[in-house]
Parts: sequence; structure tokens; C-alpha cells
Amino acid sequence: MIAVFGHKNPDTDSIGSSLLYAWYLTQTGQVAQAFRLGEANKETLYVLGLCGIDLPPLMGEIEPAQVVAIVDTNNPAELPELSQTQIHSIVDHHKLAGLVTSEPLSVTLRPLACTATILFAMVKERGLQLPPAMAKLMLSCVVSDTLNGTSPTTTDEDRRAMQDLALQTGLSLQEHADAMFAAKSNLAGMTERDILLSDSKLFTMGSKKVRVSSLETTDPSQALDKQDRLIAAMTALKVEDAADHFFFFVVDIVRSHATLLVCSETDAEIARQAFALELEDGRGELPGVVSRKKQIIPPLERVLV
Amino acid sequence: MIAVFGHKNPDTDSIGSSLLYAWYLTQTGQVAQAFRLGEANKETLYVLGLCGIDLPPLMGEIEPAQVVAIVDTNNPAELPELSQTQIHSIVDHHKLAGLVTSEPLSVTLRPLACTATILFAMVKERGLQLPPAMAKLMLSCVVSDTLNGTSPTTTDEDRRAMQDLALQTGLSLQEHADAMFAAKSNLAGMTERDILLSDSKLFTMGSKKVRVSSLETTDPSQALDKQDRLIAAMTALKVEDAADHFFFFVVDIVRSHATLLVCSETDAEIARQAFALELEDGRGELPGVVSRKKQIIPPLERVLV
Repeated sequence: MIAVFGHKNPDTDSIGSSLLYAWYLTQTGQVAQAFRLGEANKETLYVLGLCGIDLPPLMGEIEPAQVVAIVDTNNPAELPELSQTQIHSIVDHHKLAGLVTSEPLSVTLRPLACTATILFAMVKERGLQLPPAMAKLMLSCVVSDTLNGTSPTTTDEDRRAMQDLALQTGLSLQEHADAMFAAKSNLAGMTERDILLSDSKLFTMGSKKVRVSSLETTDPSQALDKQDRLIAAMTALKVEDAADHFFFFVVDIVRSHATLLVCSETDAEIARQAFALELEDGRGELPGVVSRKKQIIPPLERVLV
Repeated sequence: MIAVFGHKNPDTDSIGSSLLYAWYLTQTGQVAQAFRLGEANKETLYVLGLCGIDLPPLMGEIEPAQVVAIVDTNNPAELPELSQTQIHSIVDHHKLAGLVTSEPLSVTLRPLACTATILFAMVKERGLQLPPAMAKLMLSCVVSDTLNGTSPTTTDEDRRAMQDLALQTGLSLQEHADAMFAAKSNLAGMTERDILLSDSKLFTMGSKKVRVSSLETTDPSQALDKQDRLIAAMTALKVEDAADHFFFFVVDIVRSHATLLVCSETDAEIARQAFALELEDGRGELPGVVSRKKQIIPPLERVLV
């Protein structure tokens, strides 16, 4: 059996594409099952509920004989230790991040906004027919990663996949996106730490360990009203991580606007250099910024690497 | 313009697939040109002559604005410094070797014997028609990397590609393979150093720097008659490389049999452990061994990593 999973801190594309790729592998004669490496966020739970698909189980310790397939990352920092594990294949849309395998394998990386868009093309090439629930799930992944086409990462191929899948499923793109983003924006029951870790990655930039967290929301005030408590939680988390820098972006996906929070003067200074912005009391405004991959990581790397 | 090239010390698949992928990219609306990172071997020159295709030019220094595409490797050790270079895409059949890119890109890795077999599938998927010279070149790459289907790396997909391309080109597989291997086996005019470097890779295994060279030949005596001079040249090259270990395999592709030469007692001891073979005067016999990827590197890694 091939265990399929995405990155730690999974988002909708990571969990959705695990399920979609496990389905694809099964259709092509393999035995495969989707797993997840962490808790699902509220958007993902909403989407799975709508599609009538069960949440994949948490991946336990990986046995030596376990064959795995990876979606939505190829970054060793976002994966468990796999040096002794046979990797069947990787489907991903990020840059190459230095993974070393012991054997040749299938790797399909494409510079698209979403793993599910790559799977859309693979399903088409094979002449497979998506069941309605899988088509809804695939559409949801693309809507999530492209912020319904408003993110600058969106390519024409992502747009075509969304349009095709909206037709197939009969879902209204705007209504579906609104419902997904409303689910994601509901912070009820979440601690500051939950908020900071809900969509968060640790990067190595030059010699520095850097945590970059995002909160995509239609209602930024739910987070920003708690600015002081969030900054205090950032300080604690940074110590716990032994991280050199920590940047937290509250991304208003309606206005396409990010608010950056930092918890130290050093981080503020790096942010000033990276984004040419003004910060006051650990907070700065970045109009037009929504994409971590395209608009946040590259400027930080230009300063730190 | 996208500059397409394979690894340093190029073999027939590396140069052939550079030409084939440049052709493919051109057919799909890109501007692309094939280059090479080193001298072509005699087999490659024979194949290009047969196909009536010019040898690609040597790649000079890579300008910052140059976009590149890579075939037949994804290993930074086999490539020039590319950290500031935009990599358009990679098509390869080796394991992931730790390359880091600054941007998302297309990567197509498949666990097949040959890069050209992957390109065969890509050409088919796109519904493109190979010109006769390109079909001959593609067939030659697969024949070269699979030793006409006798290497244990050969998959069913490689076999199907060879059969299909033999039909398309009207070439007899056995006659074509014999002519290619005879061209490769002719060592006239080559120094010991040329022989040792004609198909050679530097690996990092654990903390060790390891050179592994192969000579695939239908006439091993041409090399083995010069055993003492080859071992002397190995000693010199090992110093020059500052390598920890050096293993040279003369591979008889008719008998499927490798003869290993080493130039130090340390290397002999590692070879004994890796291959459970007897060595005398720096020489040991390995019946059935032909593939560096499948039969040589994994046992060495088990001892050294």
C-alpha cells in the first residue's frame, strides 16, 4: 500500500491532493491511501463535509517497509524523516528544496498555483472520469490556493481547471469560494498559538531559521483585535522554535492586503528592508500582498540569503 | 532562448536527450537550443553521424539572464553553478540529488532506464511526430542506456519505446546496437586518463568523495591489457581530485561482466565489503554486473554511508 500525504500543517490543497492522488493511483492499478501529517484547518473540514469525504487519518510512525507518495511539497523540512523510506512519487508545485532519495522515482513538479491543477491534467491525460465528490474536492483545492483566482500565483492553467471543474460540479465559483473563506475566517475556539500555526512554515534562509505564518481571512479584525496577545505568543513560539526570525501576515483576501506582525526590533528591521514598509508597534501594512510564495518569501530571501 | 544540456562528461543519452528536448520545446512554442558540458564520446559521435545531426556546441559561461533546461541529471555535482540561474525544467531518470532552485519549475522524473524514454512518452502525449533523424537519435539513447535491453535498469516502458522506434526508423535493433557498441569500444587515440574519464562521476557518500568510472565495451582486453598503466593513472587522478576512493569498472557488455580496478588497499577493502568479491593486484571480477546505477552505487553506499 502506498501512503499518500502532503506537508506538515496541512492546508486544503495538501489534504485534498492527498485524497485525489490516492484515488488517481488506485485508478491506475496501485493500492493507495491518503493520510495527513497534522490537524486540518476549518476550511478543509468545511470542504470535506460538503464533498461527503472522510478526513484522512493522521499518519503514525513510518515503518521501514512503508512506501509513500508525497503531494504539495518536496521540502525535507516540511516532511518526516524519509531517508530510509521508498518514495514512490512526488506531485508538487513548489521549487526544488533539496530532497535526496535513495532510488529513482516519479517526480512531477509544475509551476502552477496548486497541486490539484497538476492532478487535473494527469487525470485528463489518463482519460479518467472524476466522481462528483472528487471533482468538488479538486475545485476546492484550486480555489483555496489561488484565493479564487485573485492570488498572483494563479496561472491560466489554474483558471481553466477551475472553470472546467465549476461546470462539472455545478458549483458557483464565487459562492463556493465565499463559503470556504468564511469557514477559514472563523477563529472561534482558536488560541493565539493555533492562529499562528494554522498556516505556518519554517524556512532556512542563509544561516537563519525563519518562521513565516499566514492567516488568510475575510475578516482580519478577528485576529488584529488581539494584536498584543498575538505578538506575545509569537515571542514565546520563537523561543520554543529557536528561530532567528518570525513574520506573521494577516492576509485580507477580500481587499488583497496583508498586515505584518513582528515581535522584535530585529525582525522589524529585516521587514523594513525586505518590503520597504513602515512598522509601528510591531505592525506594518502591505497593500496588494497575498501570496507567501510569490510576494513574501522572495523579498525575505533577498535580505537574508 | 532556453539552453538545454545534460551532465558533465556527457554520454549518448545526455547529448541525445538535450537535442531531443530542445526539439520538443521548439515544437511546443519555446525557443530552445541544445548544448553540451563536455566532450562527446565515440558512440555519441557515431550516432550523430548516422542521424546527420550536428554535435551541439560546448556551453560557455552561463550569463545571469540565461534560462536553462536540464536533461539526464538533477545532481548539482554534475552541473555548473546554477543558484542564480532560472531553470525552466528538468527531465531525468535518476534519484533526487538535492538540487535547490529559487523558483518553482517543471520537473519530470521517471524511474526508467533512459531520459529519452521519458521524452518518447512526452512526444506521444503531445501528439507530436518525430522527424526520422530525431527518431533514430531517440532510439540510440535508449539502446545506449539499456545496453540494448540487457541492463537490469531496463523497464517494460523502455522496451516498448525501443520496439516502437525500431519500427518507425526501420533500424535493426541488434545491428544498430552492435555498431554503436563497436564505436564505443574503440579506444584508439585515447590516453589512460581519457579512458578513466570517458564515463565517470564523482559522488559524495557519507563524508567521502568517491569517483566511479565505467568503461562499457565489447572488447575489454583493449583496456585490461593496459591494467598497470590504468592503475597508475588512477592514482594520479585520485590525488588531483582529492578523492577518498576511486573505483573503475571495465564492463563487458557482451558477456554482462564487470572487471573492477582499484589503486589502493583501502579501496580494495571497501570493494571486498561492498561486492563480496576477491581482489588480487587491484583487480576483481564481477559476473553479471553492468549497471552503475543499480548494481554498483547501492552496494558502495551501503558500505560508505
